[in-house]
Amino acid sequence: MALTGVKALTFDVFGTVVDWRSSIIREGEAFGKPRGLSVDWAGFADRWRALYQPAMEEVRSGKRGWTKLDDLHRESLGKVVTEFGIKGVMAGELDDLNRAWHRLDPWPDSVPGLTRLKRKYILATLSNGNVALLVNMAKRSGLPWDTILGAEVTRHYKPQPGCYLGTAAMLGLKPEECALVAAHNNDLAVARGLGFKTIFVPRQEHGPGQTKDLTAERDWDVVARDFFDLADQLGC
Amino acid sequence: MALTGVKALTFDVFGTVVDWRSSIIREGEAFGKPRGLSVDWAGFADRWRALYQPAMEEVRSGKRGWTKLDDLHRESLGKVVTEFGIKGVMAGELDDLNRAWHRLDPWPDSVPGLTRLKRKYILATLSNGNVALLVNMAKRSGLPWDTILGAEVTRHYKPQPGCYLGTAAMLGLKPEECALVAAHNNDLAVARGLGFKTIFVPRQEHGPGQTKDLTAERDWDVVARDFFDLADQLGC
Repeated sequence: MALTGVKALTFDVFGTVVDWRSSIIREGEAFGKPRGLSVDWAGFADRWRALYQPAMEEVRSGKRGWTKLDDLHRESLGKVVTEFGIKGVMAGELDDLNRAWHRLDPWPDSVPGLTRLKRKYILATLSNGNVALLVNMAKRSGLPWDTILGAEVTRHYKPQPGCYLGTAAMLGLKPEECALVAAHNNDLAVARGLGFKTIFVPRQEHGPGQTKDLTAERDWDVVARDFFDLADQLGC
Repeated sequence: MALTGVKALTFDVFGTVVDWRSSIIREGEAFGKPRGLSVDWAGFADRWRALYQPAMEEVRSGKRGWTKLDDLHRESLGKVVTEFGIKGVMAGELDDLNRAWHRLDPWPDSVPGLTRLKRKYILATLSNGNVALLVNMAKRSGLPWDTILGAEVTRHYKPQPGCYLGTAAMLGLKPEECALVAAHNNDLAVARGLGFKTIFVPRQEHGPGQTKDLTAERDWDVVARDFFDLADQLGC
């Protein structure tokens, strides 16, 4: 079996477990309607997400000290609001909109699939999301994590090795006793380079225009259609 | 209601959630029997636990760098084995015995009580145990934590303020939005001083000879007989 010796499944979250784009569009529409805002919320969601990597890169590069994702999201939101010409919104209202990232909806198979996988494996996040974001998201939709790990507790944003290796170390496991589950080929490539087992689950996270990560680009240890298929393949 | 505004219940674990002493005695007996060891395992458990605070104090004082509890337990075990005159045991066998702390049994009300409390509150550990110890313990007995926090992720052992305040901060909460549940008056006193709400649940963790922490020594926000009573009082 491809995952012999694996004790923990660690998960990328944004895109892999939750559908961030549809959720942010939904939150944007709910925000805009009572305020009479006319905004392309899909474009807004894509632009907000596009600022995600550059914001983390400032931390990864050492240009700024450790800053949790909630705070990076909030700064990016201020920029996007300006770019989209949204005016007359109070800072406190934007703080609430920023917490849309705590309210992302899981893919339909995520909760039931994870519930099956949990019987056999330790399930931990290996996400750039901060602890509060991931705890609140899980609490809202019933994601059954055994614990929240990843960037905030290791103080390293993926793809920095410390995020993966620190997560494995906190679980008391060797990298090869952990598998990363992700919808992103580049995330899996880094994890494999550090000794993790790799599981690819494709997700249409970028909407109808998505061109990358539609298929496995390497011989990942497991490739599954969704978390149901993954549970089937792992005998859970 | 005493806990108005509280969103997370954070838990001391050793003694409050799990019965470490009976469990270590059980593990000691299981270890000793096939090896023909004649040991006072209750005394052994008490002595091992007695080295807990001095070991952490070396880290708290800065005399040594961050060291997780598994490693402190292992060092203490080596001393106790020598003190009790146990000979001819391999290091690998002691490594396994050391993981007895990952296999502690919950009090009978812990799992069903926490399961009720989880419907209304975020449940997190605020323990000096390291992440792997607490994850493995929860996995074995079904403790339904939302996430594992406390010493290892904050790099501060209780009663250092950073352990409590860092845990609240990772949950994205103010101290007054968190309550500490503990069987130890001194733990609660520190938490209250930092702004946490306080919940005392007495436990006979030290066996029949216990003299301290049998009753609430201050007007804690909630005093409950066990986690069932706590769930009743909190309307869960």
